[in-house]
Amino acid sequence: MSSDSYTPPKVWTWEKDKAGGRFASINRPIAGPTHDKDLPVGKHPLQLYSLATPNGVKVTVMLEELLAAGHAGAEYDAWLINIGEGDQFGSGFVAINPNSKIPALLDMSSEPPQRVFESGSILLYLAEKFGAFLPTDPAMRTEALSWLFWQMGSAPYLGGGFGHFYAYAPEKWQYPIDRFTMEAKRQLDVLDRHLADHDWMAGDYSIADMAIWAWYGQLVLGRLYEAAEFLDVTSYTHLMAWAEKIDGRRAVQRGRMVNKANGDPAGQLRERHDAADFDTRTQDKIGEGQE
Amino acid sequence: MSSDSYTPPKVWTWEKDKAGGRFASINRPIAGPTHDKDLPVGKHPLQLYSLATPNGVKVTVMLEELLAAGHAGAEYDAWLINIGEGDQFGSGFVAINPNSKIPALLDMSSEPPQRVFESGSILLYLAEKFGAFLPTDPAMRTEALSWLFWQMGSAPYLGGGFGHFYAYAPEKWQYPIDRFTMEAKRQLDVLDRHLADHDWMAGDYSIADMAIWAWYGQLVLGRLYEAAEFLDVTSYTHLMAWAEKIDGRRAVQRGRMVNKANGDPAGQLRERHDAADFDTRTQDKIGEGQE
Repeated sequence: MSSDSYTPPKVWTWEKDKAGGRFASINRPIAGPTHDKDLPVGKHPLQLYSLATPNGVKVTVMLEELLAAGHAGAEYDAWLINIGEGDQFGSGFVAINPNSKIPALLDMSSEPPQRVFESGSILLYLAEKFGAFLPTDPAMRTEALSWLFWQMGSAPYLGGGFGHFYAYAPEKWQYPIDRFTMEAKRQLDVLDRHLADHDWMAGDYSIADMAIWAWYGQLVLGRLYEAAEFLDVTSYTHLMAWAEKIDGRRAVQRGRMVNKANGDPAGQLRERHDAADFDTRTQDKIGEGQE
Repeated sequence: MSSDSYTPPKVWTWEKDKAGGRFASINRPIAGPTHDKDLPVGKHPLQLYSLATPNGVKVTVMLEELLAAGHAGAEYDAWLINIGEGDQFGSGFVAINPNSKIPALLDMSSEPPQRVFESGSILLYLAEKFGAFLPTDPAMRTEALSWLFWQMGSAPYLGGGFGHFYAYAPEKWQYPIDRFTMEAKRQLDVLDRHLADHDWMAGDYSIADMAIWAWYGQLVLGRLYEAAEFLDVTSYTHLMAWAEKIDGRRAVQRGRMVNKANGDPAGQLRERHDAADFDTRTQDKIGEGQE
């Protein structure tokens, strides 16, 4: 922040070294593709193009839950989109998601193939396609969808607000950190109060839980931004218990590994094309290196 | 921003004068009600508790569109939630929306009454309840929902990011303004490119258009943050044409007036209980004053 006496120009213009922090190279004020590149297509009906960020993990958890529940039609190929290298700006990816964000899904079982973008939209699409992980009772379905939309509208304050200014911005500035910390803690408290007298967000375990867990569950489990102590996450006891319960599910553990390209190599499955990939991963993939 | 040498504490604590700007009094790091207060209930099946912010306008536009299309079951009472005075923290409101944000809907035609919160969830609920303004073709419905979720996940960068730091924060700081301006412009370009070869966001005019118009349409029409010149909104010509087309709809003009509590008194209908309220508004309401 150059100074407290900044005066914005009449018309903002792009200077490429501005406003970046850790992700400077991938933020642009314009949309559209930067280069021609087709996407690979594998053998399964569902083609996922993603990365194991919280938004990506929502979808891989859902797919693994569907498979664990016996929905064989949910078999999928998961392709790695390296956002640090600009894969999301390739023409093939932009054709599936004009917003150039992961995750994006292509359902090859439709003619023509159906594109689905935005993690919340993908979760709802899969829940409706397979009739699973979304309450069938209309009242409870509405409640689950309210929480799903809540997650979509709230997490930008956690990720693009708190996470950015607490962990990724080039310097620590008190005002934005305070602003977004206050909101992140409020959101954690919203969840904690709800989970104080509900086992799951709405009815049984659903896409609302998966979406919220990927962000807020993983946050209280200490996996995002190294902010567990700063946010005093252990004080949200009901949320923590729910987060741990979900974290113990085998499908969740598998979903977390898919399209993971950093951290412990034992937890990475950079691409996923078959259920057996989880078993053979250590011998096949561990030598590939990582960024 | 006190200085560039800020070091966050190990554990964040709430100081009530911190991190506010224009909305300091209504931001809190905890959830739940602050006071007991029941909500009023009128004569119609749908009870809306809202304010004419972009998120509120989405829903009043949808309700007026439904009525204009002949769905008499969409008759509604719209009650004003004054967020500056903390109405959203009353016990009755929190019971309908534990997130304490407008808009919130109560459908009295269900037993027990159905709560719906989050503007995107309310739009989807109404579209499904009345079978209107959402494509029935599965492929196009999926596309509409992707754009609806896109709006929900993107607008926080426009409102809570760009709008806050450009218009409401206590000082102008370059880093957050640059960061969120870049993202706001990218989002505008995403829409402009899509609307270059689509009449509407997905199929016919739908809840995706209403949701996106309330934020991005009103932004390019110069109604948000006095930022039209700064963002060079006239350069997004396809988006502008679409925004003007929607702005000309009578139901949109009505929806914009509902729960409006500032600006030109002629454009305000602070509460809406009957279709005739729009006609009698000037004589009945204009003397009530405004904040």
